[in-house]
Amino acid sequence: MHPLIQHIQKVTSNHQIEGDSILPFFETKTFKKKGILQEEDKRCLMYFFVVKGCLRLFFTDHNGVEQTMQLALENWWMTDLNAFRSGRKSAYTIQALEATEVLAITASNYELILAKFPVIESYFRLVYERAYAASLLRIQMISRMPKDEFYELFQSKYTEFLQRIPQKVLASFLGFTPEYLSELRKNRIKAKINS
Amino acid sequence: MHPLIQHIQKVTSNHQIEGDSILPFFETKTFKKKGILQEEDKRCLMYFFVVKGCLRLFFTDHNGVEQTMQLALENWWMTDLNAFRSGRKSAYTIQALEATEVLAITASNYELILAKFPVIESYFRLVYERAYAASLLRIQMISRMPKDEFYELFQSKYTEFLQRIPQKVLASFLGFTPEYLSELRKNRIKAKINS
Repeated sequence: MHPLIQHIQKVTSNHQIEGDSILPFFETKTFKKKGILQEEDKRCLMYFFVVKGCLRLFFTDHNGVEQTMQLALENWWMTDLNAFRSGRKSAYTIQALEATEVLAITASNYELILAKFPVIESYFRLVYERAYAASLLRIQMISRMPKDEFYELFQSKYTEFLQRIPQKVLASFLGFTPEYLSELRKNRIKAKINS
Repeated sequence: MHPLIQHIQKVTSNHQIEGDSILPFFETKTFKKKGILQEEDKRCLMYFFVVKGCLRLFFTDHNGVEQTMQLALENWWMTDLNAFRSGRKSAYTIQALEATEVLAITASNYELILAKFPVIESYFRLVYERAYAASLLRIQMISRMPKDEFYELFQSKYTEFLQRIPQKVLASFLGFTPEYLSELRKNRIKAKINS
């Protein structure tokens, strides 16, 4: 069974889903490591579901520094949601951090499957409900927690990120300098050795 | 027509909604200014839709300072979403900032109306889709934007917040000290006078 259909079944607890009628609305695309799925300032036409691999979403700031705002591993969705919903230009670049396979859907097909399959409406309601709740916790961690506590919590919840995401990208995602992240990691190793 | 039914019609563009069958799943509650809708560390049993008035969601930090994380005006939803979804204790207090009327729904009635009315599933999918997209922008504003630029953008988008929310609460919501917010406001007034 396709990973997307498995994910829909898992999230909705509905096991009567006909993958054969849903998958034709998507296109499979593959990208090499560092490949670009969406360019900044180009119209945002696609929404991506990660089948295998890893993506990041970033913009380049006034100082030319790439600021990573989101990461997506398997079973995560990624696009510039504001731009995708409105058909405007993307404010972000989406790039593969590993060799990556995605399912891509256009805005019109997204509207079609939402209207045609009640289980898809329910699936996205649940996906966004969780994502929204998680993003509120992320705001609290970023804005109200000492950086070292934030990192402790993050690394306990998202171990896979630490293993798969390059240090520099991870530091940017967390809003740290690469030097600060490196120092935090060294201190953690020291603390482990001494405990 | 009830404001919730109007809001469902507006968000879903569906004008065939039977308010008479949906509203009985909710309870109307009214609170005085400073009234408490949800206490921190008590089970989170209700999800609130603001009919009239204004709510804030906050926690009290280690230093005894109330940290406001969310605000809700008319037509906004508010609860500790993680706790509501799981039936756990709330990590936050929800308080009325003005005399406020809400519709309140229990978790079991929330599940019922989602399952019974496809338009409600669609409504919440759209509500969360927007809220999630907005929260990602909020993360970017908080973590990557100079504070004065962030405030400029915020005040141009959320004029009503500036007029209705007490300074101290607004400062906390923005992650500023009250003194810093007051200074920003003074500088803006000076800039207006000189321009």
